[in-house]
Amino acid sequence: MTSTIHPVILCGGSGTRLWPRSRRDKPKPFLPLLGERTLFEQTLDRCGDTASFAPPVVVAGAAHVDHILAQAPQAATLIVEPAAKNTAPAIALAAALLPEDAVMLVCPSDHHIADACAFAEAAATAAALAREDWMVAFGITAERPETGFGYIRRGEPVGDGFRVDRFVEKPDLATAEAFLAEGGYDWNGGIFAFRAGAFMAELEAHRPEMARLARESVNAARHGGQMVHPDPAPFAAIAGESVDYAVMENTRRAAVVPAAMGWSDVGNWAALRDARGGDADGNRVTGPAELIDCRNVLVESDGPRVSVIGLEDVVIVVDGNEVLVTSIAGAQTVGKLKGVTE
Amino acid sequence: MTSTIHPVILCGGSGTRLWPRSRRDKPKPFLPLLGERTLFEQTLDRCGDTASFAPPVVVAGAAHVDHILAQAPQAATLIVEPAAKNTAPAIALAAALLPEDAVMLVCPSDHHIADACAFAEAAATAAALAREDWMVAFGITAERPETGFGYIRRGEPVGDGFRVDRFVEKPDLATAEAFLAEGGYDWNGGIFAFRAGAFMAELEAHRPEMARLARESVNAARHGGQMVHPDPAPFAAIAGESVDYAVMENTRRAAVVPAAMGWSDVGNWAALRDARGGDADGNRVTGPAELIDCRNVLVESDGPRVSVIGLEDVVIVVDGNEVLVTSIAGAQTVGKLKGVTE
Repeated sequence: MTSTIHPVILCGGSGTRLWPRSRRDKPKPFLPLLGERTLFEQTLDRCGDTASFAPPVVVAGAAHVDHILAQAPQAATLIVEPAAKNTAPAIALAAALLPEDAVMLVCPSDHHIADACAFAEAAATAAALAREDWMVAFGITAERPETGFGYIRRGEPVGDGFRVDRFVEKPDLATAEAFLAEGGYDWNGGIFAFRAGAFMAELEAHRPEMARLARESVNAARHGGQMVHPDPAPFAAIAGESVDYAVMENTRRAAVVPAAMGWSDVGNWAALRDARGGDADGNRVTGPAELIDCRNVLVESDGPRVSVIGLEDVVIVVDGNEVLVTSIAGAQTVGKLKGVTE
Repeated sequence: MTSTIHPVILCGGSGTRLWPRSRRDKPKPFLPLLGERTLFEQTLDRCGDTASFAPPVVVAGAAHVDHILAQAPQAATLIVEPAAKNTAPAIALAAALLPEDAVMLVCPSDHHIADACAFAEAAATAAALAREDWMVAFGITAERPETGFGYIRRGEPVGDGFRVDRFVEKPDLATAEAFLAEGGYDWNGGIFAFRAGAFMAELEAHRPEMARLARESVNAARHGGQMVHPDPAPFAAIAGESVDYAVMENTRRAAVVPAAMGWSDVGNWAALRDARGGDADGNRVTGPAELIDCRNVLVESDGPRVSVIGLEDVVIVVDGNEVLVTSIAGAQTVGKLKGVTE
């Protein structure tokens, strides 16, 4: 058995909460939001060591193909989803395409991980468990009582990880605080390791229709160069569902591998601010700007100069013909602005 | 003696604290900051009733001539200051040019007065005192313990006004609060009424060199159409000084006419916000904008859409290639931004 890990990079999600930088025609994964390379490129970079990783399989919608071809290596395989059906069907396409014994490492394309070594170590640990047919989730070290993520409670040790005691949906603040106080809870960051055949077997057990339709779609796929176009007809009949609901919460072999790796989902402007290094006053500035009496202010401008006075915990984004000014708390609400859905 | 009042409109000051809307080449008086007409036009409008007012005399620097010719009536006289020397020499140019018995009403060109009737009444009261050779200041009703203005303490009644007990320089907050608690203090808004001859006589008594040089400059002036160009040589020798220091604090005949007229010096973005009517949440928006969970926010955009979430008492100005975001308290500091002096 080879020790190679097959990265499966999921390019879903529109990143509307990072509007106006993230737009329909240039969404979040394909923007250089943290550093000079895009979040997608950085995701590929983390899986770029050919001693450990096979060439990546990217699963994405047709709208993102141009961005992916521009940013991914030629060795990558690109599975073009016929429709957006959430994560379980997307992963099933890759699992059905790959050899049964391939160990997949499923990664969102739009997260940030500061510590690439810690990621690689967790990936190796997760892969070892996946080879024994565990369905493995990364357990991101919970750093604060976040109410925006699901949690995973660790159970008995297994290999270098743990059985999953249970998955917990996004909790309220009091519950999240209790989790942190109690310990043994990690964030579910949407990073998973599976043996391809084991994943399909679990899917057949718990979502047989989804498994059948995904296989049909892959078996009738049109192949061209590095691109794979699954048959849209069977895929269209799939009921969309997350891998958490379809597989992880049903399998008896769920495992979790704790990972302290400086992870951020870069889920909104507040998260992006926190993922960036600040100056002595905690301010983060990209583009021309002058700040007076400011603390923990994020300024991001694609051209116009931004002058800021006397503010704290405020985000200011200038992008083309749009200017966004929001409190850190308000950053959650950006996706609800009328302009975002236009 | 005629009852006509001669408006003398002073166009000094750069309005840097209203940057980036106010710029060197289009300063504050010539912008429509409150309503559709500019502050300068509104100043002329207030003195436009020919039953009470003679055509205006405008005193301004050469840089502002084009704006003034575009916005002032043809009947206006425009005295082009050879140099910026503060208010006393500027007023002296007008006083030396006008007939000795002309009653001048000296008005800054960049203030806002909501109640034009109250202004007209105060002007008539001040003119009556000026005709008796009082040096008359408007006493603006002090609405809050403002530390950015000078104060005038009322003394004994004289005519329909009061003798000035004393002028007080910008106080600290505790002193300003004591003034409001005690009563009898008004703001010095820089609006004055003088008989031209009386003003020159006071100037000759207290600043003889300034009076002599201003007269010389006017006597050797070049006249062309509605424009008067005083001789620059004597004017250059004048030591610049405010009318408050040069005349008002020295004369024995200082009077004050209280005026409750919705006055604002529109001295910075906080003052401009307060002078504008807001919506139910106190927000004031000019240009395309969407506000969520905001209170008392001022948005002013010349084009780009501005989206604001979760902020209170913040000013956002988009003008050309500049974006300003400031707290209300920080509005005082706008003039210190590097960009403003460029």
